[in-house]
Parts: sequence; structure tokens; C-alpha cells
Amino acid sequence: MRLLTLRTENGTKAVRQDGDTLTEIDGFADVGELLRTPDWEATAKAAAGATHPLEGADLDAVVPSPGKIICVGHNYRNHIKEMGREVPEFPTLFAKYQESLIGPNDDLALPQESDAVDWEAELAVVIGKKGRRISEADAPAHIAGYAVLNDVSMRDYQFRTIQWLQGKTWEKSTPFGPALVTKDEFTAGPLMTSEVDGDIQQQTPTGDLVFTPEYLVSYISTIITLNPGDVIATGTPGGVGHAQDPKRYLQEGQLLVTTIEGLGQLKNRVIKEA
Amino acid sequence: MRLLTLRTENGTKAVRQDGDTLTEIDGFADVGELLRTPDWEATAKAAAGATHPLEGADLDAVVPSPGKIICVGHNYRNHIKEMGREVPEFPTLFAKYQESLIGPNDDLALPQESDAVDWEAELAVVIGKKGRRISEADAPAHIAGYAVLNDVSMRDYQFRTIQWLQGKTWEKSTPFGPALVTKDEFTAGPLMTSEVDGDIQQQTPTGDLVFTPEYLVSYISTIITLNPGDVIATGTPGGVGHAQDPKRYLQEGQLLVTTIEGLGQLKNRVIKEA
Repeated sequence: MRLLTLRTENGTKAVRQDGDTLTEIDGFADVGELLRTPDWEATAKAAAGATHPLEGADLDAVVPSPGKIICVGHNYRNHIKEMGREVPEFPTLFAKYQESLIGPNDDLALPQESDAVDWEAELAVVIGKKGRRISEADAPAHIAGYAVLNDVSMRDYQFRTIQWLQGKTWEKSTPFGPALVTKDEFTAGPLMTSEVDGDIQQQTPTGDLVFTPEYLVSYISTIITLNPGDVIATGTPGGVGHAQDPKRYLQEGQLLVTTIEGLGQLKNRVIKEA
Repeated sequence: MRLLTLRTENGTKAVRQDGDTLTEIDGFADVGELLRTPDWEATAKAAAGATHPLEGADLDAVVPSPGKIICVGHNYRNHIKEMGREVPEFPTLFAKYQESLIGPNDDLALPQESDAVDWEAELAVVIGKKGRRISEADAPAHIAGYAVLNDVSMRDYQFRTIQWLQGKTWEKSTPFGPALVTKDEFTAGPLMTSEVDGDIQQQTPTGDLVFTPEYLVSYISTIITLNPGDVIATGTPGGVGHAQDPKRYLQEGQLLVTTIEGLGQLKNRVIKEA
């Protein structure tokens, strides 16, 4: 099942995608709100609200207001190598705030303060059931599904200090969507690609993750309760602009396309902030 | 004015403290919800709901569910020195999730996974008005007031990787309160102290901050919108247990007391997790 958050004249709506048609799931303003209902899966399956064509749909971030966005660094061997680091014993975790999220086709505005805006294609795990100290074996029961996220990073701010947060959480900088694909229809493995104006920058199978989605759910939930709608951004593979020689950053007018086979595509036009 | 979040049999209530009496501010479940009303200050002043004695009151974290908790590292010269670092050009920012917060008198449970639980007394700034790219001159208009926070840190997890988040955001580990003291009644300056079983560990004037509350509001809001109820934990001074020789961590049965003159006190009994 594919679930999306659609912007309409009457606010956002959680919708189910069947082929080229989006069907409203009545009573839920977005996919995050839907996931907070214990029987969200049956509710979404049975929904028969107003319909909209997928073509031309104005999509919001699939979960626009997660309680937590937990990001993972150093989780693909080829990116660990390009950043000059060792394969780690423990996952590197950092945060992003919900104000950073944008829709899958929204413009990506380069902030006036940064000259080093870089891409980071990532597989996002969306939590569907609350839990603490979840075992790896139980983790699948807590995962609602998967989506595509680009952890766009302002490298100048990221490396101003030893903590990355300030380069990772700029307002409206993180495209997220287009759909939550439920876990019965997707397993980490398929190829993830980021392209700038059609030139492939990153291309690595999501199966190459050092720490799997299930391991991350278990590890993070040791520390803190995971709640429905929480998002784990599982890290980016090699090919970021900052690690290229010469370094390469996003420029006004470019098109950033982020794809995971089986999940879908983010297409974000890079603009100069108004 | 002093505003608190009181736990009652009918859920939490935002209350105003006048001397030894707490008066409910009808319609608001907690101080965070109150701050999201534009005229929160007048509403709180005029409130005349049910009253409760302060003595024996069961207090929640003063803002139990902030949209964002932004923490600042390396912000007192004596702590920068004890951690072996240089006075920084830019504030070091990291995050904490809302599930970490506990009330000002709640028990502090040592998690079974960590043997290195340390104190970090901090002055917390609470946002009262939404803003982006707020100038330092305008920052006071965006600050609702101040409270005491102890950024209790699991040092073993904090230093497992180069990003601190996993040592900073354990479930129910961060006492926060007792009250939001509005900015007309408090300015950074007074002495902040942390004590373990009556032994002073940290004692530094909050006026010694490298980056002031107003500077931090301006700096952070360059990156992301600050919203009412958001919290900035402004960093801890020298005297943390991790920097002592030998290193000293919290032990079952101890009493951790965190005080800022003019703001109040957090008193947390250290227990073993059930």
C-alpha cells in the first residue's frame, strides 16, 4: 500500500494511492496523524473518500510533522571511506527538526547564508507502532514502511563546530516522500540514486547499509521511545558533493532528483531564497 | 510572573504561582499550550481558576512537549577549559527530544545500559513568539522567560560516536522547571549551582555565558523558525563529573539538586530503573 499526504484547498489530507488515483482517508489530515491510530493499516485499506488524480497532485512531506526525526551518519561503507572514516561499531545519531521538511516536488531554496548546500539521498524508515527497547526480531512489527528523503546539508554550517545539527536542520531543506510504502511491499535492497541535472551523483543499493532498519529501531529504542510517525533517516552512500574533487554544491536552477527503486522519486528544483 | 505545569487527577494544568498558591489558567493543559496563544501573558495574568497549594504540588516539566529542544555545548569558559577545548567562534548546537523531559521533583532513573550518568546544570530559555532571522535587538520580544534544566548526560553513549545525541536524549532523563519565570523578572546573571547529596559540583554565574540568550535566539533563528514553547538549553559550566579526577557519576540513592537564583530549584532523587 502507498500512503501520501496531499495538499488541497481545504488543508492537507492523508490519501491512499491506487495506480493513478489518490483516495482520501477521511478524518486524517496527514499520514502521521493516520499512523497514530492503532488500526491505521485497516483504516487506510478500507478508505473510500473523495478521489484526486495523482498527476499534478500537490504533495506535502509524507509525514509533515514527525515527533522525532533521527538521522544516522556513516552508514554506507563507500560514504564512510570518502569522508575518511572507519566503519563504526555503533551508529552515529543526530537530529533534524520537523520545520526542515518539504514535499517531494517542492522547490528547494538555497539559504542566503550558505554557499555549500549538498545532497544526501537516504532511505527513511517510518515508525508505525510505539515501543521502547524493541528487539531486532520485533522491529518489523514497529515499522510502518519506507520513503525517500534527501538530507540536504549546509556543509559550511555543519562543520562550523563538532556537532552537525546546524548544517542539517535548515528551514524547508529536506524533501521527504513521495509515499510511505508499507513494509509488506518494500525491503531495503533496491538501488538509491541522486542526480543533479541528470548527472548521477550517488548510486548505491540500500541493501549496503552497515546498520539495517531493524537494528536501528532496536538501537534507538534502547535510548528513547519510538512513536508512530517518528522517522529514521538511515544515512547516505558515497557521492556527496562535499567529497568530490573539486567540491560540488547545489546551484540555482538545478534539478535535484532522488530515487529509490520501488519507493519513488523526489524532484526538487533548486531556487534562490526570495 | 511564574508559570508552572501542575499534574492533577484530571490531567495537567497550566498554573500561575502567587506566593504559596497555584491558580489554574483555564483552558490550557500546560505552559507550552499557553505560550501558543498570542496573548498568553495577559491570559495568565488575568487567570482566576481553581487554586492549589504550592506545597506538595506534583509538577510536570514546565513545558512538557516543546516542538524543539536546542542544546548548546561549550558555552562557559570554565567548562570549555575542563573539556580541553578552545573558546569557540560559533555556538555548538545539538538536540534533545521531548520524551527526555521529566518534572522538577521527579525521580531520575539510571538506565540499565549506562554506567556514566552525569549532571549538567543549565539555564533554559523558553520562546514566547514565533520568528525567523530574529536580530539580537529583537530577541527579547521572542523570549517568554527562563527556567532551570539539567542536561543529564550518559557519557558512555555520548562518546560512542562523534555526535553526542545518543548520550543526551535518554528517556525521562532531563529535569526541567520548576517554573517559567517571565523575562521581566529575570536576566542571565545570577548564580547556578548543581549539588550531589549536598556537595557543590558546579557553581558559576549564568552571566558568564559565552553566547547570550539573545545571541542564541538570533543565531538559531537564522537556521530555523523558533516557535512558542521551543526551548534553548544554553550550556553547562565547569564541574561536570566526567571532567573530575577520578571521574564521578550519579549513583543510586543520591539527590541531585540544580538551582538558579531567582528561578528556583530542581530536586531529583537518583533511582535504579525498575
